[in-house]
Amino acid sequence: MSALRLEIRAADPSCSARTGLIHLPHGTVRTPAFMPVGTQGSVKGILAQQVRETGADMILANTYHLAIRPGDETVAKLGGLHAFMSWPGPILTDSGGFQVFSLADRCKMTEKGVVFSSHLDGRKFELTPESAMHIQENLGADVAMCLDHCPKLPAEKEEIDAAVRRTVRWARRCREAHTKPDQALFAITQGGPHRDLRERCAEELVAMDFPGYAVGGVSVGEDREAVHEALRVSTPKLPWDKPRYLMGVGRPEDILVAVEHGIDMFDCVWPTRNGRNASCMTFEGTVRLRNAAHKEDTRPLEEGCPCVACRNYSRGFLRHMFMAGEMVGPILASIHNLTFLQRLVDQARQAIVEGRYQAFSRDLLAKWST
Amino acid sequence: MSALRLEIRAADPSCSARTGLIHLPHGTVRTPAFMPVGTQGSVKGILAQQVRETGADMILANTYHLAIRPGDETVAKLGGLHAFMSWPGPILTDSGGFQVFSLADRCKMTEKGVVFSSHLDGRKFELTPESAMHIQENLGADVAMCLDHCPKLPAEKEEIDAAVRRTVRWARRCREAHTKPDQALFAITQGGPHRDLRERCAEELVAMDFPGYAVGGVSVGEDREAVHEALRVSTPKLPWDKPRYLMGVGRPEDILVAVEHGIDMFDCVWPTRNGRNASCMTFEGTVRLRNAAHKEDTRPLEEGCPCVACRNYSRGFLRHMFMAGEMVGPILASIHNLTFLQRLVDQARQAIVEGRYQAFSRDLLAKWST
Repeated sequence: MSALRLEIRAADPSCSARTGLIHLPHGTVRTPAFMPVGTQGSVKGILAQQVRETGADMILANTYHLAIRPGDETVAKLGGLHAFMSWPGPILTDSGGFQVFSLADRCKMTEKGVVFSSHLDGRKFELTPESAMHIQENLGADVAMCLDHCPKLPAEKEEIDAAVRRTVRWARRCREAHTKPDQALFAITQGGPHRDLRERCAEELVAMDFPGYAVGGVSVGEDREAVHEALRVSTPKLPWDKPRYLMGVGRPEDILVAVEHGIDMFDCVWPTRNGRNASCMTFEGTVRLRNAAHKEDTRPLEEGCPCVACRNYSRGFLRHMFMAGEMVGPILASIHNLTFLQRLVDQARQAIVEGRYQAFSRDLLAKWST
Repeated sequence: MSALRLEIRAADPSCSARTGLIHLPHGTVRTPAFMPVGTQGSVKGILAQQVRETGADMILANTYHLAIRPGDETVAKLGGLHAFMSWPGPILTDSGGFQVFSLADRCKMTEKGVVFSSHLDGRKFELTPESAMHIQENLGADVAMCLDHCPKLPAEKEEIDAAVRRTVRWARRCREAHTKPDQALFAITQGGPHRDLRERCAEELVAMDFPGYAVGGVSVGEDREAVHEALRVSTPKLPWDKPRYLMGVGRPEDILVAVEHGIDMFDCVWPTRNGRNASCMTFEGTVRLRNAAHKEDTRPLEEGCPCVACRNYSRGFLRHMFMAGEMVGPILASIHNLTFLQRLVDQARQAIVEGRYQAFSRDLLAKWST
């Protein structure tokens, strides 16, 4: 597979954190990387040009949502996802497997694949390993994901074991069905909270030699310690020279811990969902913009932040936008949160280069927990 | 009054159209000018920087809405409207008089002023000529407007006559109460559909020598011919060397006709309200983005338009954003419509300079009416 090349530039000697570059057909991604989520073809409320200005190298789009509407054939006719979204840089599409989890009551799974009843109009929509590849090739992202089975937790070990076995079988079918040479296909490891299942899943997938690996089934209902345990178990089994992607995770605290375990890529709707809700993250902690304390505050949301919200507007104005129900409030707060995460991973990269990642992470986690 | 200077650069010999520059404390405005409306301190969904990129020189904000929330004292503490909105260029604030019309069932008028019951929480809010000046001085726009009485049409001539007389008395009180030297105060002419009332109102206000004049009470329920009649009557009575502002008007067809009558300034929520509703204006006519015909259309909304929507996105993408309920759709359509109006007034300015305004206007009106 020549669609992807990982270049590790530095590793922190005191932990598993590493930093580098992922070279992809549409550009290069600095790792650790945070990918903003453009579920339906846009990061909610934010133009592609503005997403770029937050410092993001790569974005994510959702296969299930785009296949349902406007349809992957339509996206292909409109020039593929890069032209469609006006995002010339690298893009990753998920496989739709996560919707098996999030839309569980709307889908029926067999060994062949999953049949969804569309959340829009109830029409049947079948996702198999083969169709997941076909759709993602139509969408044309730089990185495609294998269709996996992500069980809802907590679940019986037997059930999780079955999901792992199916995930491995489906990964093999995806690998065989995938034909696009300028698209890298990542496998997804499952296994829930079970060390033996996580290890076996990783080993079997690694044996198939994918260009990248995701840790899946995390951030879907377990407590935070279980997330860390999944990482402690999974990442040592993943090859050093391939990117590691922790799906659906993007809270600042979780990113800090996952980087320490050697994760390279993240995605999450956290920054935009929280931003729309007037909750903003800063290096000093959370700022809730509806708070009356901000009414006459001339200070920016975060001193020194280069985002359009912090460079141009006072906390007083931002609060007013939310109180008045003006769209500009959610837009500016979302841009700030996206910028914050890019600054966080940028500082993490620098800390890794300088061999002080653990102190960097520990200091921030301590500050935020007070 | 040195806060404003109108520099007329060219006049079309075949009609009353003129083009020039209005020099104001925060910058220069090319006329004819279209001012986007930032009712509550933001143009809906559009950042100030993006409004600037549409080509706008000057924007409008609403006194009533800002006085109610966050309060003019709060805006003053946050540095005044320019800092608050992050709009360093010229700003105009209306007087709140229009809300006497639009919120008629929530207000009680006496010779002293108007008492509103706030549309937010029912609290009493009094607007007098004196308080309208005080609030607008706190807001700190480049141009403030006199408090006027805009009656709901149709109305008995007697009632309109009384409104004109009150508007003139209130204009005198505004003039006496206004103290801010770097803010120009415009008077508003009323008179409904009656030539004699319009003429008398204009004459009495012009005798007070304001730095600019608005034609008010237009676009509030009359048919379009009545709008033109009001302009035919009013503008010849207004001094040639002062700006003329047609309040609340901004549909492309109406702008074209009003410029021919010598109007220099416009404001309207039309471009953003229509944009949010997927209705976009182009030089070829209206494009309704939800139309199924656009599903796989790779063309931009308007060929040659320099806006971010037309430079970066296909009609197919824009349609998808509306069908998917993504905020990016309304944002891009609003930016396009704002850009369209700026291009329209820019072309109008050029046509006036070249003495071919009537042909320019006639050709577009003919094209749009088909």
